[in-house]
Amino acid sequence: MYKAPVEEIAFTLRHVAGLSAALSEGRFGDLSDDVVDAVLAEAGRFAGEAIAPLADVGDRQGVTLKDAQVTMPEGWPALYRAWMQGGWNALAAAPEFGGQGLPHMLQVATMEMWNGGSMAFAIGPTLTIGAVEALSAHGSDALKRTYLPNMVSGEWMGSMNLTEPHAGSDLGALKTRAERRDDGTYRLFGQKIFITYGEHDLTENIVHLVLARLPDAPPGTRGISLFLVPKFLVNADGSLGGRNDVHCHSIERKLGIHASPTCTMIYGDGRFGDEPGAVGWLVGEENKGLACMFTMMNNARLAVGMQGVAIAEAATQKAIAYARERTQGRAPGWEGPGMSPIIEHPDVARMLLTMKALTQGARAITYACAHAVDMSQVTKGDEARHWGERASLLTPIAKSFATDAGVDVASLGVQVHGGMGYIEETGAARLYRDARIAPIYEGTNGIQAIDLVTRKLPLSDGRQVKWLIAELKGIAGAVRAAEDSGFGETAARLGSSLADLEAATDWLGRAMAEGRHADALAGATPYQRLFGLALTGAYLAKAALADAGDGRKAERTALCRFAAENLMAETAALKDRVINGAASLAAARAVLG
Amino acid sequence: MYKAPVEEIAFTLRHVAGLSAALSEGRFGDLSDDVVDAVLAEAGRFAGEAIAPLADVGDRQGVTLKDAQVTMPEGWPALYRAWMQGGWNALAAAPEFGGQGLPHMLQVATMEMWNGGSMAFAIGPTLTIGAVEALSAHGSDALKRTYLPNMVSGEWMGSMNLTEPHAGSDLGALKTRAERRDDGTYRLFGQKIFITYGEHDLTENIVHLVLARLPDAPPGTRGISLFLVPKFLVNADGSLGGRNDVHCHSIERKLGIHASPTCTMIYGDGRFGDEPGAVGWLVGEENKGLACMFTMMNNARLAVGMQGVAIAEAATQKAIAYARERTQGRAPGWEGPGMSPIIEHPDVARMLLTMKALTQGARAITYACAHAVDMSQVTKGDEARHWGERASLLTPIAKSFATDAGVDVASLGVQVHGGMGYIEETGAARLYRDARIAPIYEGTNGIQAIDLVTRKLPLSDGRQVKWLIAELKGIAGAVRAAEDSGFGETAARLGSSLADLEAATDWLGRAMAEGRHADALAGATPYQRLFGLALTGAYLAKAALADAGDGRKAERTALCRFAAENLMAETAALKDRVINGAASLAAARAVLG
Repeated sequence: MYKAPVEEIAFTLRHVAGLSAALSEGRFGDLSDDVVDAVLAEAGRFAGEAIAPLADVGDRQGVTLKDAQVTMPEGWPALYRAWMQGGWNALAAAPEFGGQGLPHMLQVATMEMWNGGSMAFAIGPTLTIGAVEALSAHGSDALKRTYLPNMVSGEWMGSMNLTEPHAGSDLGALKTRAERRDDGTYRLFGQKIFITYGEHDLTENIVHLVLARLPDAPPGTRGISLFLVPKFLVNADGSLGGRNDVHCHSIERKLGIHASPTCTMIYGDGRFGDEPGAVGWLVGEENKGLACMFTMMNNARLAVGMQGVAIAEAATQKAIAYARERTQGRAPGWEGPGMSPIIEHPDVARMLLTMKALTQGARAITYACAHAVDMSQVTKGDEARHWGERASLLTPIAKSFATDAGVDVASLGVQVHGGMGYIEETGAARLYRDARIAPIYEGTNGIQAIDLVTRKLPLSDGRQVKWLIAELKGIAGAVRAAEDSGFGETAARLGSSLADLEAATDWLGRAMAEGRHADALAGATPYQRLFGLALTGAYLAKAALADAGDGRKAERTALCRFAAENLMAETAALKDRVINGAASLAAARAVLG
Repeated sequence: MYKAPVEEIAFTLRHVAGLSAALSEGRFGDLSDDVVDAVLAEAGRFAGEAIAPLADVGDRQGVTLKDAQVTMPEGWPALYRAWMQGGWNALAAAPEFGGQGLPHMLQVATMEMWNGGSMAFAIGPTLTIGAVEALSAHGSDALKRTYLPNMVSGEWMGSMNLTEPHAGSDLGALKTRAERRDDGTYRLFGQKIFITYGEHDLTENIVHLVLARLPDAPPGTRGISLFLVPKFLVNADGSLGGRNDVHCHSIERKLGIHASPTCTMIYGDGRFGDEPGAVGWLVGEENKGLACMFTMMNNARLAVGMQGVAIAEAATQKAIAYARERTQGRAPGWEGPGMSPIIEHPDVARMLLTMKALTQGARAITYACAHAVDMSQVTKGDEARHWGERASLLTPIAKSFATDAGVDVASLGVQVHGGMGYIEETGAARLYRDARIAPIYEGTNGIQAIDLVTRKLPLSDGRQVKWLIAELKGIAGAVRAAEDSGFGETAARLGSSLADLEAATDWLGRAMAEGRHADALAGATPYQRLFGLALTGAYLAKAALADAGDGRKAERTALCRFAAENLMAETAALKDRVINGAASLAAARAVLG
């Protein structure tokens, strides 16, 4: 059973991602270490004791749809209410609407735990929080007053309605129609697919944020507006009114996250309400809907990255526990009686250490990204701009590296279990199934790579990425200066990987500057992976260098060394692929017909 | 829908694996190219038209157990009978028992196609063929006469009963008991788990081959005997007699291959028969059961490798078809109207070409292994020994590289589909689920790596592996000599990967010779992967160099170049991991507690 890694999370927040420095600089007002510890401990308890025990029933029962109503698995409505009553949904929201105003870093840390307990559970609140962010930033005061308090408390959940059958990665192609009405409201007509938690029985109302196109809107992405469409209309006194003309038409049978309803939503077919058309309110300005969405998209991407971290953590815990218990054969050097636990076999140890290193690396990257988000909000001027860029730069890497790690680590987890890993009762298979959506939704990892290369590398004329690399080089230098033999070849290995990152970055910069877009895009995914690995190496070293006084320094140093001497050599191959791979890729296109 | 790649299979058999040379040397008697083509074409038709359409219903319905009887999915019994009546089960078996005596290479090629249609279907016959091989090699004449004709025709299926709850990879720990009876028969008592096709309603009888221990047997692997235990006893006239005391106690709920029943089998609890004890007959000698099993284990491992190839092929076909149809965004250089097919995006093309290259590489390795098996059987003396060793050396690589490729390619296939890939109806998710068992069963890929390093590298005092590497170097030399600019940097890249392979091989040889077993085992999995990648590069080059007159030479050269310039750089990292990874792995053991 999943046990939230509270200590590891607290350590990473403080000593790798920068929470300690931010606290001592007073960046988060009077937030104290004690409060941080209390929040993390309590969240860890809830994730392990309340959420995790319901993950399997959620997976087995899934959700059912009848008469446009989705029924959640047994025990899930009560679980949600308990979670909500714990105040967890309000953690990082603005106090004016009932939020606790805690740093984003803490929210991300609790999200890791909810996802570790059950990814199908955590994705619901993730969407609500995204909707709160979009509404907070762009909604009118009236809309905020009407909806935010209940959405912040979690009394009502939110959903994000972007995708249509022919508009997934390319939102410019979407067709859902919004018509203006004289009273200032709109009527929406259309179909949205893959809507996570679009319908369920956890809350009385559901607040849909919907991208749609006005009749006179320009084509493409510049003609998209954002609307708020509640499942039930809200009366002037705040009570629920009539049913709005939006409903769930069908739910998907998916590979994993079975307890997360994935809905096809129909807007304005006349099934509910007086006249056809779902009543909606504009959020932000007409035709500026995509910009509103981008506000929350970065945070949503980071939240999905957290899912990768959480699945990787859960899979690693499960595999280590199994490998300690299960005996088979005699490992070299085993002197106990009978068979040795399989954890003693070098090949199994290699798998487990790889899982550990990838998990911890992905965690450090995502938390560093959350830190940058926080810093961009608590600083001003150039400093705020710098941290905003840092968050932007790290977001695609956090999303892609962590979600790929989730899949890879869950797959290794199945392998460590041997035949038992293929049996659903064991739970390793569920993690493997659940993990697989994260590299896809909120922008596929390929889209993240395009974003990284074409939008993030050019930030501050290419200097933002250089600043980050310089910081990482500083870590490599500190490893060298530490003269700790426990690091083995870490300094040299890390230095070499950072040189690979620098060379690949420079090459991509030139390719983009020279208009060789196809070449640059051909290398985008290997580059993204290279960046993630280099960050992993550097952040594992930063962790090992930190003095937390918890007696685990030698252990962290050993994990860092393992990663440096076993995982970092891959960066040379990735750099090579970035720089030398495009020509053969272009030449081989004919193979695909 | 899966379409068997008949031309690619025929090409690989002939020009990469060595079938053409073997035929022209008359190694397979009067077998002609026409017969080969006819067999492949007919198998391809059956796989695509009869098996593939039932794969999804098999996955959705799965199998059910009631009163010790497993019911297969709708349409599957009829499918099996049609397959059997096509004579497919008898393809490579000895003519004296009704087999067609065709080369193992052809059987493997047809197996790729059955698995491409449905892995859950093909695994059943795979087990039967394994049982036929074991019985043919070690059974008494009486046993063969009684069982082989019906097992060769497929009228009765077989099952292999090895695993017990505490004896998986380590068979020495098994506890199933066999007692001698005065009439020369035995009575078996015990429990076997994970028994594939241990019970079903496809055939009237099921012939279980069971490993068990005699009361006076020495402990460990030297005290294991092999027994034949039929579900129904067979009368002297060949008709079915009474029910034997063996039954299916439960079936597993698995991640994939839902239509393949995975049974817990109970022997001798008195549920059936006159007195408790399942009636069994010894196969081979007492206490020599493991040696009997090893006879068929290599072939079974190769057969599982084929599953990896088949899943990779099916996933690649599906992804390419989707990427041609699905439009989204505008790829660089796209000049058509509207959105471009996603296959035009460099990142998608990279995924698809990687899938193609891994699939074709895995196919070439497995077919080359099957060729070696055939050659070992049609030659004599030193030549037979050489080919036997070659088959032994290639088997763990074929099994592991191809099954890892199956998982990796199926995962890429899901990714290419985006959100649709996560929806079960699309079918990509099933391949991802099905693929995951293959790196586990028939010896986990970690076990294969141990086998490769500790048993296969020492063959012929380490010269067997050197001969193979020399052969691969010859291919690299031929690429250089070809002076075809289409190869790009292939000659240099391949040469470099083969140098990595050689260096890693030498290092492992020294480590084993010096008794540093833990170090050698720590590098076993990276080494196995390195070997598979080097073989992939070399065999793709061999394919590109061949002159098949089919107008696809340029295409094969381009795929070879893509692999050389995009995938082969990984070998340097793998070599590094083999040679330099063990120390940090040992140092980090404490991290695992």
